[in-house]
Order: sequence, then C-alpha cells, then structure tokens
Amino acid sequence: MNAAYARLKSRFARMALVGEAGAVLHWDASAMMPPGGGAARGEQLATLAGLAHEMLTAPSVAEDLAVAEAGSGEWDGANLALMRRAQARAAAVPTELVEASARANSACEKVWRTAKAASDFAAVRPHLEEVVRLQRETASALSAALGLSPYDALMDGYQPGVTAAEVEPVFTAYGAFLAEALPRAEELQARRPAPTSPSGPFPVPAQRALCQRLSERVGLDYAHARLDESLHPFCGGTPTDIRITTFYSEGDFAKSLLGVLHETGHALYERGLPAEWARQPVGEAAGMAAHESQSLIVEMQACRSDAFLTFLGGELHRTFGGNAAPYGTANLAGLWRRVERGFIRVDADEMTYPAHVILRFRLERAMIAGELSVADLPGAWNEGFAALLGRTPPDDARGCLQDIHWHDGAFGYFPSYTLGAMAAAQLMRAARRDNPAMDEELARGELLPLVAWLRDKVHAQGSRFGFQDLLRHATGKPLDPNDFTDHLRARYLN
Amino acid sequence: MNAAYARLKSRFARMALVGEAGAVLHWDASAMMPPGGGAARGEQLATLAGLAHEMLTAPSVAEDLAVAEAGSGEWDGANLALMRRAQARAAAVPTELVEASARANSACEKVWRTAKAASDFAAVRPHLEEVVRLQRETASALSAALGLSPYDALMDGYQPGVTAAEVEPVFTAYGAFLAEALPRAEELQARRPAPTSPSGPFPVPAQRALCQRLSERVGLDYAHARLDESLHPFCGGTPTDIRITTFYSEGDFAKSLLGVLHETGHALYERGLPAEWARQPVGEAAGMAAHESQSLIVEMQACRSDAFLTFLGGELHRTFGGNAAPYGTANLAGLWRRVERGFIRVDADEMTYPAHVILRFRLERAMIAGELSVADLPGAWNEGFAALLGRTPPDDARGCLQDIHWHDGAFGYFPSYTLGAMAAAQLMRAARRDNPAMDEELARGELLPLVAWLRDKVHAQGSRFGFQDLLRHATGKPLDPNDFTDHLRARYLN
Repeated sequence: MNAAYARLKSRFARMALVGEAGAVLHWDASAMMPPGGGAARGEQLATLAGLAHEMLTAPSVAEDLAVAEAGSGEWDGANLALMRRAQARAAAVPTELVEASARANSACEKVWRTAKAASDFAAVRPHLEEVVRLQRETASALSAALGLSPYDALMDGYQPGVTAAEVEPVFTAYGAFLAEALPRAEELQARRPAPTSPSGPFPVPAQRALCQRLSERVGLDYAHARLDESLHPFCGGTPTDIRITTFYSEGDFAKSLLGVLHETGHALYERGLPAEWARQPVGEAAGMAAHESQSLIVEMQACRSDAFLTFLGGELHRTFGGNAAPYGTANLAGLWRRVERGFIRVDADEMTYPAHVILRFRLERAMIAGELSVADLPGAWNEGFAALLGRTPPDDARGCLQDIHWHDGAFGYFPSYTLGAMAAAQLMRAARRDNPAMDEELARGELLPLVAWLRDKVHAQGSRFGFQDLLRHATGKPLDPNDFTDHLRARYLN
Repeated sequence: MNAAYARLKSRFARMALVGEAGAVLHWDASAMMPPGGGAARGEQLATLAGLAHEMLTAPSVAEDLAVAEAGSGEWDGANLALMRRAQARAAAVPTELVEASARANSACEKVWRTAKAASDFAAVRPHLEEVVRLQRETASALSAALGLSPYDALMDGYQPGVTAAEVEPVFTAYGAFLAEALPRAEELQARRPAPTSPSGPFPVPAQRALCQRLSERVGLDYAHARLDESLHPFCGGTPTDIRITTFYSEGDFAKSLLGVLHETGHALYERGLPAEWARQPVGEAAGMAAHESQSLIVEMQACRSDAFLTFLGGELHRTFGGNAAPYGTANLAGLWRRVERGFIRVDADEMTYPAHVILRFRLERAMIAGELSVADLPGAWNEGFAALLGRTPPDDARGCLQDIHWHDGAFGYFPSYTLGAMAAAQLMRAARRDNPAMDEELARGELLPLVAWLRDKVHAQGSRFGFQDLLRHATGKPLDPNDFTDHLRARYLN
C-alpha cells in the first residue's frame, strides 16, 4: 500500500463519518424531530452532503487515485476500484447539476405529497418533467464518464454492475411465468376456505414489545440498535447503531410485525458488515438489490415459511390472547401469503410484486431514453399495468402517483426490489442445502443458524464482490431466477 | 459589505450548520443512542468538529478577515468582530494541541466516572495532571494571541469579555455577604415549622405531561421542541429544534419539574435569538453567563417566587391528588427555598451556590497560574470549602471529584453560573420595574409577559453586546451584584 492509497483510505473514512452523521440526522428527522425543525434539518443535511462531495471531488483525490497502489490484497484491490468508481461518479456530474437536481427533486416531492392525495397528476407534471430532464442530463454525464448507457449509469448508482440488458430477459421471463402462475394460484386460493383475521384491538405497547422480542430472536442486538416509530418504516443509522422504525396500528399487528422483520433483515446486513473495513467503500453493503435480498430472506423466505409460522402463531396467541384458531399455521399462511391483483406496489404479495417493478423498470427506462414523455406517463402506466395484471388503475393515485421514487429523483432503483427477491430465494435454497435442519429450526423460531450462514456468505463480504459474484460466492452460481419461480411454485401452486 | 465579508458570512453559516448537526448528534448520544453506538459517535463528532475547525482556520479566512468591511451597520460590525475573535482563538492553538487535549480530556473523563463513584482521587490524578498541563499550554497560546491573561483567555471561551479581575471583587463581596446572611437565614428557617413533602409515588407519565404543559405555559412551543429523558438534564438542539431533557424519579417530582423549568429558560433564549442573524456569530447567545441568567430567571426568580408557587401548588394538587396541605405556597417555599450547607454544587440552594462557584473559581485560577498542583487539590478544596461554608467534605466524591468540568478539560466555566444568577436577579428587578403587574401575572401562572420582556431586552440582541453591555442595555447598568443580594435578603432574611 503506497502513501497515496493510505491518504485515500483516511479521506474515505472521514467522508463515511460525515455520511454516518447524516444517517442519524435522517433518522431523527423521521422518528424524532418536531415539525419546526424541518427547514434547518434540510440545510444541515445539504451542508453535510456538500462537504462529503467536496472531499470526494478535491483535486488531490484524482491525483492520488492516479498513482494509488493498493498492494496485492484482494480486499484492498476491490476497495481502490470502488474508490475510483465513487470519484468518477462524483466528478462526472457538475456541481450546478447536482444542486439543480436536489432543488427540483425537493420541489417535486413536496408537490407530489399533495398531488398524490388528490390524485392530481396535472399538478405534479411540470415538476416531474423538470426532474426527468435533470435526471436525463445526469444520466448522460455519468454515461460518458462510466462507459455505460444512460439508464445503466443511473441503475449503477443503486446496484453497481447490473445492467438493463441483464435485467430485461429476466423480467420478460417472469412476465411469462406470471401469466401462467397467477391464475392458477388464484384458483387454488379460491378453493381454500377464506382465512380468519385475528380480532383486535392489539395494544400498541404489546405490539412494540413483540416486535422487539422477535427481532432480537432473529438476531438483532439492541445494544447496537433501536426500534422507533415513523410514518414510513425504514432501517437507518450506522452499522454499530442501527435505527429501525415501524408504524403501529391498534387494529392490525401484521403490518408492523412483518415490517419489523423485514427491516431486521436490512439491519442484520449492516451489523454483519466487516468491521475491519468499516468506513471503506469495500466495507459497505453490496448495493440495494443485495440489501433487499437480506430483508426479504428474513421476512419472506424465513418468517413467512410454514415452519416459522408454526412457531410465530404460538407467540402471537400468547401475546394477544383470545381465540387460538386464527393463529394456526394454515390460517396465518392464508392471511399473509395471499396473491392479489392489487394496484399498490407496497401492499403487493411476493408473486405480483415483480409485475409492479417490471412496469416501473420499463417506464423509467423509456423516460430516461427520451422515448416516453411525462405527459404520456399516466396512460402508459395504465396500459402497462393492464397488460401485466389484467386490471386498470381507477385513478393516478393508485397508478403512476403512488410511489415517491420518481418524484424524488430516484430513477434506476426499482429493479433492485425484484433482483433482491430473486436473490433471496436463491440464497435460501443454498442455505437449506447447506443446512438440512433449517426448517426444523425455523419451526422452533430459530433463525440464528440462517443468519450465521448469511453473515458468512453475504454480510462479511462487504462490497468485495459485485451482485453476480456475490451470488456466485454464496450459492455457486450467478442470479438464477428459477430459484425464485420454484419457490413461488412450491408456496403458491401446490 | 464587501466581497470578503460576504464570503465570511457564508462560510460561518456553513460552519454553524456543521455545529447544528453536531448538536443533534450530542442530544441523540444522551437521549436516544444505544450504548453500542458510543465509539462511532465519538468519531462522528470529532470529524464534524475537525471539519468546522478546518473551515475556520483555512488561510482564506485570515485573508478575508484582513480586508473585510462590514459596512456601517452595528450588527454587521459586531458580527465581523466576533468572526475575528473566533478565528483568532482557533488559529492560536496548534492542531496537535487541540487533539492532545481532546484525547486527554476524554481519557480523564472516562477514569473520573469510576473514580468519582469510588471516591478515588489517586486514580484520576495522573489524568487530571495531564489535562491541566494541556489546559495551561492552551491558555498560554490563547493568552499571547488575545492579549488576555491565561486564565482570562480560557474564561473568554465561555463568557467573552469578562475577566477574573472583574469577577474577583464581586466574589469577595459575596463571601462577606454570605458569612453574615447564611447564619441568619438558617436561624429564621429553623424557627419555621419543617415543611411536609407531598407523598408519592408520582407516576412518570403524569410528571412528563405536567413538565411539558408547564414549559408550554412558560412559552416553549413544541412545534420547535422536544422533551426527553437523559441521565444528565440539558438543553440542546438548535434554535428552531430545541431538545430539552430531564430525569424522572417516581418518588419525587420536584427535581424534574424545576429542572425542566430551568432548561425551558435556556430553550426560550435559543428560540428567541434573532432569526435574521441565524448561523452568524452575532446571532448566537451572548455567552454562558448570559445563558445561565435566562434559565435562572425562569426557574429561580419567577417559578420559585411566592406568586408563581401559589399557582403551581394548585396545578400540582390537581395533577397528583392526595392531601392538599403540602401544596400550599408556604410549604412549597419551605421545601424548594431551603438553605443548606451541602457539599454538592448541583444540589445547592441559590444562597450557598455561589460559595461552591467561588471555591472552584479560585482553585482553577490557581491551577492555571501554576500556583496549585493537582496533587494539592483535595486539601485545598477541603480547606476552601470549610472557609466558605464551615464544613469539611467527608470524602473527595463530595469534594473535588464531584463535577465533570475539570475532568473534561473545562476550566474558566464555573464563574458563569454565579454571574448568571446575579444577572438573573438584576434582569428580574428591571422587568418588575417595567411591569408592575408581574407578580399578579405570576400568581395566575402567566410568564409570557416576562418572557416577552426578555425576548426584547436579551434574546433578540444575540451577541450584539458583551455581557456587561447586554445588562446595560436591558437594565440601565452593568452587573450590579447588589440586586442579587437584595433578592436573597428579601427571600431568605424576611
């Protein structure tokens, strides 16, 4: 390791610490901050982001990167490559464009909140047009610097190394699977007796205690974590100080409980990142699809399995009392593994969820390519939705206005959800193969063996591998969507 | 305003935003953070402090300061002078010394926590010696740059513009007053019937609601504030996002209640700072003595007055129920305005509190002057304490180990407490003179007229004036300790 690389390591560590400060301030803004603090918080976060950006684009960084030698270690080599990529991305986009985007995103997001409630696409349209215009400009600048297509350059910001050309055939094949599998799943579902909802109210303090207890059981250590409340659940904070949030409703415990298990999956990934590479690019999580694979393997693969539901039903009945019948395994499976052609992505089941993502992937790719105008978005959305799921959204609130992403300038993010779901199925199959006792363990509520496997195969690898190589390392093959469809067949078509 | 001054304003605003981020992280560390986050938080805060220090000591700042012209406005003139002072202080101390001090303070503070519990001065002594050595070095560097004595240069960091030469005669006179007044107050107190403590338990949720309600009544707007719990109560956050904390005990509501009223005084000062000068040096609070005057005028002057106690007693009885007698005005006064020759500063009444401060002022001044060694501190402490209050601390835990300040490298801070108490009495006398109805208002639980007066005379002035000129502006005269002793005579010797 030469002096230039040593300087870079120390600079990237400092940038990461500024990022950690920002992460805690973000959490605070969602979970704690009084409303009057909002304006100042925006300024504080912008200042920290600006400082980190200056640190990354300082001329000395480019100079050091040009002569840096990481030595022969594999981790150091990957680290230096990630540093080069981060600097190239930051340097490619002029500061004025970064700032114009931030302003446009923030203005659009603000209007979107009201427009969504009123299902008023016309109100948000000029703002979204500006967002898309600046995203296209950004994509074009990144494209030139990174040697990727404009859309791939945006996607690379969320899940490095995955291209639209890889995603497209996977999604096309899934569309074909869905066209055949969904009607069959619906038919089988219709033949079974309708599940019974447990009857509440479910007191919030009891829900909170249950959520914390189960996330601890799954492996989250509250000496390094907090569980709080916010309107939109998330996992934030830093690897040694995780902040997960949820939203409780007295009438329904399922949403917060399954949400906390989902966020716990994210949290365990952050907690399991290699401490010896903390605050270095190679010590970070390997992208958003990898991250989503960790939340979904916990929530969807493990916790919604028959085995775990058997354990969970007992826990729930002990916690909330009342009639035991709704807490039986088959009934819980009926409630929480129900396919439905809904309009809302965040409420979707695991079989139809990819359809929501495929729609967005195609539309955003077309918008970035200049082949779809914002004015034509609502129509294209409704048409695409009908083609995939056979229904037409009754309004834009349940159509193209439902997600914050585009209105906040996030283009290229959506594919990560489905890549993550597919990776989760692939990882679960490999973990089951390596540990034949897993379902017996899950039936006893024991996720720690699975988490230990994930820690070893995924978490402890940081960003040493790209998405495909990480899967290769953990499962012996690159992304194989068949593992996901096999999982769906086993769960929904049997 | 020339270009250099415009650049400085923008740079100081950015530094202030980094400081605001740090303030929220400090609050979080005390009120929210899981223990496992401590190490990372230390790094995050050090990074932010380091960035702000670099921003202040960059060569371009000195260059801009040399040619900056603020124009003819009084506020801009004061702002530029404060910028020069901040830069001079930061530039005077070499980075290595700043870092060595931070490390020594942190190491000493850590050992002190255990040493205090065990009353083991020997354990902390080598660490404190190192802290004092580095403080003396810092003081000497600041002294040369600022043209102040070493101790004054440290004190200037907490309460700008006040010197030991001004403080010494004030403290000497107070010592003489105390020697005469304390025995008389004790005698009068002994003649009155012993007050009765309300009997608990006092449920924490009821205390919390009461504390918030009363602080709102005093003028704190919870759209811009939060009230939480921490081991050591404080007022933190930022002017538009105040975070006050307290510590509840089921068996006693008085400590948290009076503590919250105290912190509310600090909070109102921050909330009332001139928004048009936000994030500029002249828009900040005018030092720690000024700050303490605002907490004490609310807690000690207003809320412990007979008039307010009359209102408060009714509120308390409505909140906690039970026997009404302990909530009578005279009884509450007997409980909460009791003089006592205690060993512990933070538990001291307002008459003996200055004795605790005078002792520390003399000892720290001698340590910085090199006239008192750390080895001789416990003996000097006990001797000084006996001379002022006539008792000898039974151990160092109740002597020189009780406060965190020195063990964390804070020398020159203590005088602010008593200067603040004196200023509070002086401000209250002036406020009463300007508003003869004040005691009738207080008896109805109305502090808003007093707060409006403070906002106008003190809060809205930011750091436009030094401590003495602020008092001159608000009351027509510089610090007049007689207002404080008159207040004590009226309250304790009648």
